[in-house]
Amino acid sequence: MSSTALESLRKLLPPGRLSEDAASRAAFESDGLTAFRCRPLGVVIPQNEAEVVQTVRWCHEHSIPFVARGSGTSLSGGSMPVADGIVISLNRLRQIIKVDPDNRIAVVQPGVINLQVSAAAAPYGLYYAPDPSSQKICTIGGNIAFNSGGAHCLKYGMTSNHVIGIRAVTASGEIVSFGGPSLESVGPDFTGLFCGSEGLFGVALDITLRLLPKPECFHTVLVGYRSLRAAGDAVSAVIDSGLLPGAMEIMEALAIEAAEAATSCGYPKGAAAVLIVELEGPREKIDAERKQLESVIASTEAFETVVAADARQRDGIWAGRKSAFSAVGKLSPDFLVQDGVVPRKRLGEALEAIEAFSKDSGLRVANVFHAGDGNLHPLILFDDSVDGELERAEALAGKILNLCVQMGGSITGEHGVGMEKRDFLPKMYDSATMELMHRLRAAFDPKTIANPGKMFPGAEAPALSGHGLHPLEKAGVISRE
Amino acid sequence: MSSTALESLRKLLPPGRLSEDAASRAAFESDGLTAFRCRPLGVVIPQNEAEVVQTVRWCHEHSIPFVARGSGTSLSGGSMPVADGIVISLNRLRQIIKVDPDNRIAVVQPGVINLQVSAAAAPYGLYYAPDPSSQKICTIGGNIAFNSGGAHCLKYGMTSNHVIGIRAVTASGEIVSFGGPSLESVGPDFTGLFCGSEGLFGVALDITLRLLPKPECFHTVLVGYRSLRAAGDAVSAVIDSGLLPGAMEIMEALAIEAAEAATSCGYPKGAAAVLIVELEGPREKIDAERKQLESVIASTEAFETVVAADARQRDGIWAGRKSAFSAVGKLSPDFLVQDGVVPRKRLGEALEAIEAFSKDSGLRVANVFHAGDGNLHPLILFDDSVDGELERAEALAGKILNLCVQMGGSITGEHGVGMEKRDFLPKMYDSATMELMHRLRAAFDPKTIANPGKMFPGAEAPALSGHGLHPLEKAGVISRE
Repeated sequence: MSSTALESLRKLLPPGRLSEDAASRAAFESDGLTAFRCRPLGVVIPQNEAEVVQTVRWCHEHSIPFVARGSGTSLSGGSMPVADGIVISLNRLRQIIKVDPDNRIAVVQPGVINLQVSAAAAPYGLYYAPDPSSQKICTIGGNIAFNSGGAHCLKYGMTSNHVIGIRAVTASGEIVSFGGPSLESVGPDFTGLFCGSEGLFGVALDITLRLLPKPECFHTVLVGYRSLRAAGDAVSAVIDSGLLPGAMEIMEALAIEAAEAATSCGYPKGAAAVLIVELEGPREKIDAERKQLESVIASTEAFETVVAADARQRDGIWAGRKSAFSAVGKLSPDFLVQDGVVPRKRLGEALEAIEAFSKDSGLRVANVFHAGDGNLHPLILFDDSVDGELERAEALAGKILNLCVQMGGSITGEHGVGMEKRDFLPKMYDSATMELMHRLRAAFDPKTIANPGKMFPGAEAPALSGHGLHPLEKAGVISRE
Repeated sequence: MSSTALESLRKLLPPGRLSEDAASRAAFESDGLTAFRCRPLGVVIPQNEAEVVQTVRWCHEHSIPFVARGSGTSLSGGSMPVADGIVISLNRLRQIIKVDPDNRIAVVQPGVINLQVSAAAAPYGLYYAPDPSSQKICTIGGNIAFNSGGAHCLKYGMTSNHVIGIRAVTASGEIVSFGGPSLESVGPDFTGLFCGSEGLFGVALDITLRLLPKPECFHTVLVGYRSLRAAGDAVSAVIDSGLLPGAMEIMEALAIEAAEAATSCGYPKGAAAVLIVELEGPREKIDAERKQLESVIASTEAFETVVAADARQRDGIWAGRKSAFSAVGKLSPDFLVQDGVVPRKRLGEALEAIEAFSKDSGLRVANVFHAGDGNLHPLILFDDSVDGELERAEALAGKILNLCVQMGGSITGEHGVGMEKRDFLPKMYDSATMELMHRLRAAFDPKTIANPGKMFPGAEAPALSGHGLHPLEKAGVISRE
């Protein structure tokens, strides 16, 4: 049944762009936070930029909320639809407009897959550095919305460090441009403001990305430890030695077990934790650094060290790590991935607290994390068919986030606030700062129609669902007060 | 004579904080863009944060414009007073609140001198990377306002890459906090938005800075070339080789001559241009890279190469470069430093065009620049006592800025838009984007009282001067249309 609210939009767009049937709407009702769903009024799949702009302007004119999304891999519910609004799916805007090797930049549309940028740059010896685990399917537009990181953000920084220009349509329908091919910008960092805005400011139309020369060689080491704390101490030892690895990752027993089952990655048997350290750069530099790393590792409580002998073995090591989230999913009917940050030096303390929370709640937690920058990803295993387990999982997630804030860290490292963590935002920012954030948002979106109900707590919840309590409200995750 | 407009401010603050006598006001009437002056109504020198907040709130309540400034080293007129407003001098807020070597951060007040941060971090083997030439006197607050760079921003990025938290009082008087000790922020990069806002958003009260481990060793090479183009080609050759030096600077003959006279820096005699390349990092890495650099330099048209044998010789090389601006000043009664960016590969072309502009105008130009990132600093020599020379110098500066925009670069690399370049901003941004910028500014400063007349062109000029045409208007640099 077609919605009358969308009648003029249906007429505005070429036939086939707007889907209103239940099956199409159902396909978009969830994102990577699969426990929660919400069916939109309709789904627009624009074929070009002009149709995106038309749709956004129509939404502004008719005060209809919209959620723009790419592949919907958000783990914080950031690309969940709103019940009274539409989804704008950007997957057809997947053109790599330009690769300019001289200036080491690429210009892409928002629906381009992360890994495709590196593929397009590869013939020039260049690549795009940010590497979320989902990089085979996630889009650059989504990476920008959530300022995504990845294993290598230890050395290279987040998405915002690699986006130098954005042309976007604001939620109020104007087309604006910030930054550009020059690495040095004028005035405030408006491009950085747009990165991480979680879809609340508008829709990126084209994006200028910085490309880096591909490292000449990699040196990837996998180290097994008998305790999580020993692995954590090793991370501090590496950093204190002055080395800056491209990546430093830790996985603990439960995650190792899952990854092993999924990818036969050959991680050290009987390890309570494995540490992956990857050096990268020119061959001569790596030759020097690998010796230094060797002696640092030797000074830790490592019981087994594997050095990747070739690209294939390196890929195997990373396959284990990158599969961890989905692999853990096989150990349990349902799971939540949490994403918090603690000061690196307090990692051991944080992990012990999480273990205690896990015991209290009776739910298993598998820790996988970007150890070098203190970014934790506890995977909380639960069974949604057991009454109350979802609520307990969410409560456990909440305890972990509170812990991160108390330790001087952050409620998100790279997954964003989205829908799941919006009630935690005021724990990080006082009311004057939150008020200012609302005013800044209003500069882009005076009608609060762009991804309403995300990031900020409170009164927007009615847009979230027109049909009684939202599952997240039932779970006690969000509130409308 | 005391101003009645400031009467209630005088009563609000402890005695001695507000100066209204002509001599005190005259001391603040100019900044590093010395050709232009404007006398404020009064000058407040707060002794602590609370007095800053009180003063800003008073300004907001009474709609009196203010300009907060540190050491006043702005080269774009960004810290020039406004005639109907007050200056808030932050030099007494010079406390280094905390150095935390474990987390590699420092928390400082806005009046702390750039180099003092590194001095405080030195006992821990750490330093603060951004190094404007004025780092011995410029303040962190000023560095944030203009998102300052320096010779080493080629490798390390600008100020905004090193500021991870800001607590500030907005122009509307609220105290807000963004970012913090965690390197991974939540949501949009509000800290980055504040960096480079040129004093239009409010006043930073304390700032959390990222510290880096001091490089174990430096390898500094000074290379002489017979032509500017040969030096420019050498820069491309270094970058293309995959090396990422900490800094790559070029100075041309006129600047060399001036630096030599000022510091006896011993630059190669008869050079049309010198290139300074500095590698930095762990000893083993530098040992590898110096060989690579040597062979790259050997492939260029270098006629003399000096390698700094020790720290003293390194300091001598840098003293020449860092003194260049003031040294050039001795060649001429007056000079303007311009600051523009072109794509690195088009440096040679840009320099030839500047040479032609210089010939046309009959004014000498000394080029000094951060070659690695295409950031030009042409120093335009003129004599203000000769009728029309200032106007010709400004016209020449304008031609250079237009050239930068046409080449896909930027009107500022690190000095900011300030007062001097505000009419050029619309050449970089279209009207929809400018409108959005105004709305974002209004979120911080609804009454347009914080550093009005800077960055944005147009209607604020009345606040700029209550007494007829401002010198910049007479020179045709700015307009009020």
